[in-house]
Amino acid sequence: MATGNINVSVENIFPLIKKFLYSDHEIFLRELISNATDATLKLKHLTGIGEAAVEFGNPVIEVKVDKEGKKLHIIDQGIGMTTEEVQKYINEVAFSGAEEFLNKYKDSAKDTGIIGHFGLGFYSAFMVAEKVEIITKSYQDAPAAHWTCDGSPQYTLETSDKTERGTEIILHIAEDSTEFLEDSKISELLVKYNKFMPISIKFGTKEETLPLPEGAAEDAKPDTITVDNIINNPNPAWTKQPADLETDDYKTFYRELYPMQFEEPLFHIHLNVDYPFNLTGILYFPKLTNDLSMQKDKIQLYQNQVFVTDNVEGIVPEFLTMLKGVIDSPDIPLNVSRSYLQADGNVKKISSYITRKVADKLKSLFNENREDFEKKWNDIKIVIEYGMLSEEKFYEKADKFALYPTVDSTYFTFDELIEKIKPTQTDKDDNTIILYASNQEAQHSYIQDAKEKGYEVLLLDSPIVSHLIQRLEGDKEKVQFVRVDADHVDNLIKKDEEKISKLSEEEQETLKTTLTGIIPAEKYTVQLESRDSSAAPIIITEPEFMRRMKEMQQTGGGGMFGMSNLPEMYNVVVNTNAPLVSEILNTSEEDTQKRLVNQALDLAKLSKGLLKGEELTSFVKRSYDMIK
Amino acid sequence: MATGNINVSVENIFPLIKKFLYSDHEIFLRELISNATDATLKLKHLTGIGEAAVEFGNPVIEVKVDKEGKKLHIIDQGIGMTTEEVQKYINEVAFSGAEEFLNKYKDSAKDTGIIGHFGLGFYSAFMVAEKVEIITKSYQDAPAAHWTCDGSPQYTLETSDKTERGTEIILHIAEDSTEFLEDSKISELLVKYNKFMPISIKFGTKEETLPLPEGAAEDAKPDTITVDNIINNPNPAWTKQPADLETDDYKTFYRELYPMQFEEPLFHIHLNVDYPFNLTGILYFPKLTNDLSMQKDKIQLYQNQVFVTDNVEGIVPEFLTMLKGVIDSPDIPLNVSRSYLQADGNVKKISSYITRKVADKLKSLFNENREDFEKKWNDIKIVIEYGMLSEEKFYEKADKFALYPTVDSTYFTFDELIEKIKPTQTDKDDNTIILYASNQEAQHSYIQDAKEKGYEVLLLDSPIVSHLIQRLEGDKEKVQFVRVDADHVDNLIKKDEEKISKLSEEEQETLKTTLTGIIPAEKYTVQLESRDSSAAPIIITEPEFMRRMKEMQQTGGGGMFGMSNLPEMYNVVVNTNAPLVSEILNTSEEDTQKRLVNQALDLAKLSKGLLKGEELTSFVKRSYDMIK
Repeated sequence: MATGNINVSVENIFPLIKKFLYSDHEIFLRELISNATDATLKLKHLTGIGEAAVEFGNPVIEVKVDKEGKKLHIIDQGIGMTTEEVQKYINEVAFSGAEEFLNKYKDSAKDTGIIGHFGLGFYSAFMVAEKVEIITKSYQDAPAAHWTCDGSPQYTLETSDKTERGTEIILHIAEDSTEFLEDSKISELLVKYNKFMPISIKFGTKEETLPLPEGAAEDAKPDTITVDNIINNPNPAWTKQPADLETDDYKTFYRELYPMQFEEPLFHIHLNVDYPFNLTGILYFPKLTNDLSMQKDKIQLYQNQVFVTDNVEGIVPEFLTMLKGVIDSPDIPLNVSRSYLQADGNVKKISSYITRKVADKLKSLFNENREDFEKKWNDIKIVIEYGMLSEEKFYEKADKFALYPTVDSTYFTFDELIEKIKPTQTDKDDNTIILYASNQEAQHSYIQDAKEKGYEVLLLDSPIVSHLIQRLEGDKEKVQFVRVDADHVDNLIKKDEEKISKLSEEEQETLKTTLTGIIPAEKYTVQLESRDSSAAPIIITEPEFMRRMKEMQQTGGGGMFGMSNLPEMYNVVVNTNAPLVSEILNTSEEDTQKRLVNQALDLAKLSKGLLKGEELTSFVKRSYDMIK
Repeated sequence: MATGNINVSVENIFPLIKKFLYSDHEIFLRELISNATDATLKLKHLTGIGEAAVEFGNPVIEVKVDKEGKKLHIIDQGIGMTTEEVQKYINEVAFSGAEEFLNKYKDSAKDTGIIGHFGLGFYSAFMVAEKVEIITKSYQDAPAAHWTCDGSPQYTLETSDKTERGTEIILHIAEDSTEFLEDSKISELLVKYNKFMPISIKFGTKEETLPLPEGAAEDAKPDTITVDNIINNPNPAWTKQPADLETDDYKTFYRELYPMQFEEPLFHIHLNVDYPFNLTGILYFPKLTNDLSMQKDKIQLYQNQVFVTDNVEGIVPEFLTMLKGVIDSPDIPLNVSRSYLQADGNVKKISSYITRKVADKLKSLFNENREDFEKKWNDIKIVIEYGMLSEEKFYEKADKFALYPTVDSTYFTFDELIEKIKPTQTDKDDNTIILYASNQEAQHSYIQDAKEKGYEVLLLDSPIVSHLIQRLEGDKEKVQFVRVDADHVDNLIKKDEEKISKLSEEEQETLKTTLTGIIPAEKYTVQLESRDSSAAPIIITEPEFMRRMKEMQQTGGGGMFGMSNLPEMYNVVVNTNAPLVSEILNTSEEDTQKRLVNQALDLAKLSKGLLKGEELTSFVKRSYDMIK
C-alpha cells in the first residue's frame, strides 16, 4: 500500500482560474478595489491599536485609465507589502492574507469590515490583462517591491523606488478587453459595484462652482475649481443606527440608490441585527405599478458594502421581492444555487427575520397613524395579501392590520368588519356573509341593490383576492364571502322571510314555459323569484363557487383542475312580482311577448356586462328607433 | 531581480474546489456518470481502431444505492485504469485525461462524443462524500488498483482483486448530504441530467409483464420477469439524421421530453449543422397558452447528450424562447454570464443560424400547405410578430409568410392584402389605408359600418400589434393602418366626395352650441359631419395616433414618454343629416332636447363600450320605463 498527496500544478490550474474564476469578467475591478480597501482598513486597524507608527490620515483609492498606454491603475494608500509579503500573498494562489489578518487580530479586528476571504480575487486581473504589475511599499521600514507577471505562472520580483506607502496595481489590458480602457465603462463599473464602499474612491476630477463672494458685482462670474471626483459614499445610511437618522435621511438615501426614480417611497424599514447572524439594510415600500414583474428584483445585496447582486431570490421571501432597498450581510453564501440557498439554515433565519420586521413595521404604522395607513393601503395591499397567502407567520400577524375597504372607502380590519355587519348580515344558518365587489363600475347595479338593503359591500380588486377569500373562509368560523352579483339581493343573505308571489303556481308554470322557450338554455338557467315589485324584472347572476374556482385556476394554483376551461353559466332571475313580468305573462301576442322578454333580457345582460358584439349593435339600433 | 513561479498548494485549493467548484452539489452525479461514459466511449474507440484486444460487447453503467452502508456506487465497464494511470489522472488535479486522449487520437477520435474537458469533474465527488474509493481494472493486462481518499489531500493506493474490466467509484456520503442515499433523489437526478446519454445506465430493476402465450386460458395470469431498469435513451431523435425520421418519430420524442404534456406540438424544426460550429437539436412550436411567461425556458440545452440547463437565454434569440425542444452543442461556453454569451462570436452565429432555420421552416410550411398554415396562425402569430419586431433578418424573411387575417377569417400576406384593397381603400392622397379591429365584439358596430362600405377589416389582436403596425408603416410605402373606431367610416378613408348637409351653416352653429352645452367638454370634442341620413345620429371615435402611442407605451417601449398617463380623449361625431338630429335642433323644449341628446350619447357610448357604472344603471332603469 502506498500513500501520497494529491497534487495540483499551477500550469493546470492557472488557465482555469483565468478563464472560469468568475462568470463576469468585469468583476475584476470589484475584486481589486476590495483588496485596496482591505489594505487601507488593515492600516486603520493597526494605527488604531497602536501597532503601526504612521499617520492614517484620510486615505483615498485612486483609479486611473491610461488609454494610450493601454493600462489601468488602481492605487491605494494602505498597508502595503514588503518583498517577503509579496512572496507569501501573491505568489501563493488561494492563500488568503485577509483570513490570516483576521486570525491574527481576532476579536479586535472583528468589525473592521475586511472583505477578502479566499485569496483568489487578485488573480481575476488576468481575466482582462495580459500583464500585471504590483508596485508596493509597506508601512513598515522596508524597500518597495515591484512584481511583474504576464499570466504564465512565471513572475519577476525586484526592488522599486516607490516612496509613498501603499500599493499600485497596473493592468496591461489585453486585446480582447479594451472596453475596460473606456472612462465610461470604468465609471459604470465603479458606480455599480463600489458606490457604497467604506474608503473613498477617486476617479478623475470634476469642476465645482464656488459661491460668489458677498457684495459681488451683478455680472460677476463665479469661480470654478477642480476637485477630486469621489465616486462613492463611504457611509451609506444602512451602516448607521436608526436612532441617528431622520425620515428625510431615508428619502435622501432612496434617491441615492435610485437616481432615476421620481416617486418617493411610501415608507422604509431599517434592518439591523447581529445575532445569530449579521445583517443590516433598509427596505422601502414603493408605489407599485401595474406591471408587477417589472417591479421585481430591485433590492440590492451587499457584503461589507461591496455590491454583489440585485437578484435576492431565495434570500428575501418572494412576496417581498416587490420592495426596494439594500441588504448587507456577510452571512449569505454566494455563488450557490437557489435550491442550496433555500436549504441553508442561516438564509432561512434571515428570510424569516425580514418577514417579521416587515410585519412589525406595518403593525406600528397601522397603530401610530391609521389614517395615513389607510391612504397607503391601495399601494401596499398586493404585497400584504400575497404575503398572507405565502407565509404562514405573516398571515397571523397581518390579521391585526390587513384592511378590508368598502366601496365607499371605509376601511375595516377583519374583526371590525365582522362586528359591524354581524347584526345585519347574518343569515338564517348563523353564517355571517361578507359581500364584496371586484369592480365598482361593472357591478354597479348589484352594489346599489345591496346598499339599499343596508348591507356593507367590500371592494376587493386584487388579482389574487379569490385565493385570499378562500383562505379566510377556511380559517375564520361561520364566515362566508359572496360577490354581489352571485345571486339577487334577497338570496345573497338568506333570512327567514316568507316571500309572497303575485302569481299562482299555475301562472308560474306558464311563465316558466314561455321564458325557457325564448331564453337559450345552454348558457342561462331561468329561476323564478318573488321579489319586491319595484325590483328589476330580470337580472343575471353568476353563482359564487364556480366563478371563484375558475378565477383561482386562472390566477395560478388552487381552484380545480380544468375548471378554467368550463363555459360560463349564469342564472336569469325573473321577478314574478314585477309589473313587466305580469305583462309578459298576460300578453296573448307571441311577437310582443318575445320582444318584451328579449328587451328585458338585453337590459339584464347590459347590467352584467354581457351584451356585446352583434347583440349590442342591434340593441342600439332598436333603441334609436324607440327614441323617435 | 528575482524570477520564480507562482505556486499553488493543494491544501489551499482543495477546500475551494470542494466547496465552490459547482454551485449545485447535485452536479456530482452528472460528472461521475460523464466520466464513466467517457471511459466506455474510449474503449469503444480503441476496439474500433484495433488498439484494444477485448470484446466491447454491450456495456452498461450501473448506479447503486447502499442506504444502510451510506454508500453510492457508480460502476462502468469501460477502459479502466492501471495504477500508473490513477497516479497520473486522479492524483493530479485539473489534468484532463479526456483532453490527452483526444490529442493522442486526434482525427479518428473527433466524433467519439467524449465529454470530459478540464479534469475537475471527479473532485466534485468530495462535495457530497466524506470518503471516496476508486476500484479500477484496466483493459490492459495489469493488476487492479484501489485508491482511497478522505478529502484531506492525502490518499492511499493499493492493489485490488477486482477481476472485471472497468471502474467502480464508491462515495461514502457525508452527513449533510444523506439526501443522495434516497432512491427517489438519485432517480430524479438521473432523469434530469442523464436521460439521453449515449451509454445505457442501469438503476435497479423493474418488473415486466410477458404477453400471454397463444391459446392461453381466459383466466390465465400473464408471467412477469425482472429486468434491468435502464433510465436513459442512448439514441435520442436529435442525434439522428432528419432523413431517417418520420413525423411520428418527432411526436414520440416530444412526449419523451415532456411526459406531462398532453397537447401535441404544432410542428418541429430539426437543427443539424457542423460548420462553422457544431449544433444539433429539435425545436417544437407548441400551442401557446395565455400566460407567456409560464411558457418560457422550455428548451433544454445539452452538450454531447449531457443535460446542462433549461435556461437558454442568450443562446436562442429571445422570441424563440417560447418554443420547446432540445439543443445540443459542444461549442456553447458554459458557466458564463449572459453579457459574456452575447459578446461571444460562436454564440452569435448559433443564434442567427437558429433564427434562419426557423424562418426557412415557416416559409416551407406556408408554401407546402397554406391551408394548414392558416389554421395554425393564431397559435404561432405571437412568436412570429415578436420575432419580426426584434430580429431584423427575421423581419425580412417573414414578409413572405406573415399573415393578416380579416374579421371574416380570410388570410392575406401583406402583398396580397395591398393588391386586394388598393382599388377600394386608397384615399385622395394616394395612401392605401389598412383598416383593422383589435376586438371583434367590442368594435362590432364600427366593423359593420366599414364592411357595408365594402372595406376589408383585419383582426389584429396580439398585445404587441401596435408596435408591429408602427414598424410596417415606417417600412412600406404609402400605407397607413387605422383602427375602425378611429373616425366615422367616411373619414377613415378620405375620398374626394362632396358631403352635403341638410342643415344650413346657421343651423349647424345653433346645433353645435346646443350640443356643447350638454356634452362635457373635458372628455368629448363635438364634431359635426354630414353623413348618410340612415347612419347613426351620434357615434364616438378615438383618434388613431394618440391611442396607438398610449398602447405602445403600455406594452413596453416605444410610444412617447408619459403618454400612457394622459386621459382618454374622444370625438363625438354628430350626423347632421340624421332625422333625430333635426328633431334635436327643432325641439323648443329644453328638457326634451337634453333628454334626446343624452339618450343618443348614451347609445353611442354603449357602442364604444364607454357606458358604465352609475350611468349604465340609470340607463337600464330608464329603458325599463320605456318598455312599459
